[in-house]
Amino acid sequence: MNDFPDLSLQELAARLARREVSAETVARASIARIEEMEPAVHAWQHFDPAQAIAQARRLDAQAPGGALHGVPIGVKDLMDTADMPTTYGSPIYAGHQPQTDAICVAACRNAGAVIMGKTVTTEFATFHPGPTCNPHRTHKADGTLQVHTPGGSSSGSAAAVACGMVPVAFGTQTAGSIVRPAAYCGVVGYKPTYGMLPLAGIKSLSPSLDTVGVLARSVGDAAFFIGTLSRLPLSPLPAVAQTRLRLGICRTQHWDRASHDARTALERAVSLLEAAGARLSDVSLPDQCKGLSEAQMRIMGFEAALAFAPEAQANPDGFSNAFVRFIAAGNAIDGATYFAAQELAVAARCALTGIFNDVDILLAPSTEGVAPAGLEATGDPIFNRMWTLLGNPCVHVPLGTGAGGMPIGVTLIGPRWGDAQTLAAAALLEGSFATQQ
Amino acid sequence: MNDFPDLSLQELAARLARREVSAETVARASIARIEEMEPAVHAWQHFDPAQAIAQARRLDAQAPGGALHGVPIGVKDLMDTADMPTTYGSPIYAGHQPQTDAICVAACRNAGAVIMGKTVTTEFATFHPGPTCNPHRTHKADGTLQVHTPGGSSSGSAAAVACGMVPVAFGTQTAGSIVRPAAYCGVVGYKPTYGMLPLAGIKSLSPSLDTVGVLARSVGDAAFFIGTLSRLPLSPLPAVAQTRLRLGICRTQHWDRASHDARTALERAVSLLEAAGARLSDVSLPDQCKGLSEAQMRIMGFEAALAFAPEAQANPDGFSNAFVRFIAAGNAIDGATYFAAQELAVAARCALTGIFNDVDILLAPSTEGVAPAGLEATGDPIFNRMWTLLGNPCVHVPLGTGAGGMPIGVTLIGPRWGDAQTLAAAALLEGSFATQQ
Repeated sequence: MNDFPDLSLQELAARLARREVSAETVARASIARIEEMEPAVHAWQHFDPAQAIAQARRLDAQAPGGALHGVPIGVKDLMDTADMPTTYGSPIYAGHQPQTDAICVAACRNAGAVIMGKTVTTEFATFHPGPTCNPHRTHKADGTLQVHTPGGSSSGSAAAVACGMVPVAFGTQTAGSIVRPAAYCGVVGYKPTYGMLPLAGIKSLSPSLDTVGVLARSVGDAAFFIGTLSRLPLSPLPAVAQTRLRLGICRTQHWDRASHDARTALERAVSLLEAAGARLSDVSLPDQCKGLSEAQMRIMGFEAALAFAPEAQANPDGFSNAFVRFIAAGNAIDGATYFAAQELAVAARCALTGIFNDVDILLAPSTEGVAPAGLEATGDPIFNRMWTLLGNPCVHVPLGTGAGGMPIGVTLIGPRWGDAQTLAAAALLEGSFATQQ
Repeated sequence: MNDFPDLSLQELAARLARREVSAETVARASIARIEEMEPAVHAWQHFDPAQAIAQARRLDAQAPGGALHGVPIGVKDLMDTADMPTTYGSPIYAGHQPQTDAICVAACRNAGAVIMGKTVTTEFATFHPGPTCNPHRTHKADGTLQVHTPGGSSSGSAAAVACGMVPVAFGTQTAGSIVRPAAYCGVVGYKPTYGMLPLAGIKSLSPSLDTVGVLARSVGDAAFFIGTLSRLPLSPLPAVAQTRLRLGICRTQHWDRASHDARTALERAVSLLEAAGARLSDVSLPDQCKGLSEAQMRIMGFEAALAFAPEAQANPDGFSNAFVRFIAAGNAIDGATYFAAQELAVAARCALTGIFNDVDILLAPSTEGVAPAGLEATGDPIFNRMWTLLGNPCVHVPLGTGAGGMPIGVTLIGPRWGDAQTLAAAALLEGSFATQQ
């Protein structure tokens, strides 16, 4: 079973369900890949091969039931697991053992998934990086290897999927924590509509923004995984009437921050989609959308200050300096400013609904550019903040490489709860790019 | 300190802060009231006087800091407490001891509140009642006492506040679980805008709907409590320009289910507000609001089926028959139906924004009528479901009594994040009613 990285998730699950391959065999293939790559990548906060094999054997002893029977997955270490320690990326919670699974984790177990371990998150899903390296590397002028950030906060999940350790891994996004690492590591990132998957049992950062999603090798895998857990009709993806698909090119008010690579990726997407028969037009966001990134920052800071009040009281020395500054900035935001930010979001959501009368899907940059060099920072979520606040579904589609051969891609955005059509459009772009290669 | 039930929360907190009264004295007054009334009311799932006094003594040994220093409160037993068992109203969790406080509970502790205990919730905040009795009773034809439901699911919190055991207690609302018990027990119920207070550490029922709020003796108390915890400018309430306040009378599409008592209460509110100088007009809800109650039921059922999948697997015998039916109904809802319900809510929220261009506040029934007799059921949330789904702030204002001398009142509804103006309008109505008495 060395070809599992080459199978779609649905095909892998079908073979497992038909008992053509055992869960243990697949788990061992995943373990072998992890053991091969982990010394260079550091994707895992907790990884215990014996524990994974024990899960697989239990599944092999049962009749296949759930749609993910025997599928190996990664769980972001922001999510509670009853059988594995959960640190939330903070030394405050070193060795912390939750009593119960997060609902999303329980849903995976009910579906028969094998939880290979916990993937590295930045500190409390914010900005202080973990040890994870981007599996994609470049060379310095002197020929030595240059390490790049995998992005954050779903750092380990993106890296683990990117190097084939697991086919899918959970991410969460509050600013840009799914789309950014997906873009930097060259995998698909799917942030569903706000509220699609439950947050219970996931460390709360900013509840108005926190969203559960997935890092995956393909749009179809992402749709199958999230569709299975949410019981929503995402997979198989609906057919797209390519000649009628209306895409709006949305450069956003941050376009001046898009690098040559990001601009080229957007142009590449436009060409591919036009060639596929879609109709593209430029879209200007309504006035109510100005200031959304700033509003997202204010809401995130204000809510985080409340969310981490217990740790701030009991364990303030356990925070990184960056996190201390983040919380202090959140405490400095007054309630009236928070109200105004939320009111802006309410107005902007309604205004954006009007845009989606004219186009089916928006196309926008995912990042300023390719993954920055070094591990000191995880890059800027400037192109993601507004979509997270608006709550619209986002799919990052990898579109080849930019500077130094590092991955780059674009984000497709659909109307709230229009996840199926957003994923379908993303699959069209993904397929067009693959065909062209 | 026997007069604490007669003080506003702010005044009580001010006296505690000035050390005119000790936290222990206030806690003992609360304990005395609980011990006097509890045998007839059964408001508490967990109540340990020694534990409450120990908290109060710790606070008395400190310099007063938080805005709730020494204030006794009740915590709904749906919310995790690190020092008290938390059952979520289910025998499955009998004796369950969480590791950490819910964020809202931690915020109360940071503010210096004394947690008197855990108040009774219906099973998992749904419909299977707990033992709590409405403190208001009637007489049967034969002269014997007739017990009434306190409503649910915040049954114990409403009853505890109604009989002066604590000045405020947490509630949560997914359908009508704050407003309905407030109405039945004759206290103020405040359901903030969806998302205002964090849900982390509160048993998840339907995360698109679950909202934390409060049961209180007055609108001012509710505003002071929630404003303190959320760090939002709710207290003191903004002045209302009475002559410019525009109220929309919203009978909703369920008006035919409003009893004589509910209709009389709405008329009473209209008269009081007109006499206070407000301008009132009839409002018809936009077409997009039709079907919202049905959509709320579908979303709640669909999401609950996912939320309780772990218990359904591990402990199905621990569910009541009513809960088993509720989950089965949720599992029978398909994903397309769920998507449609969420899409309707998106459209209705935007449409309602238009209504709030013409009126400042809506006025609507809180319940079909007074609390039904008996404890077998907790009444119907038919007049609350749509507002919970829309996410607008709601304040129930008691307006005297209906049949049998049982409490009745109305709901004021404001725009999302317009909590301050909603509370201010509610305080105007409350004050007008008090003056008229």
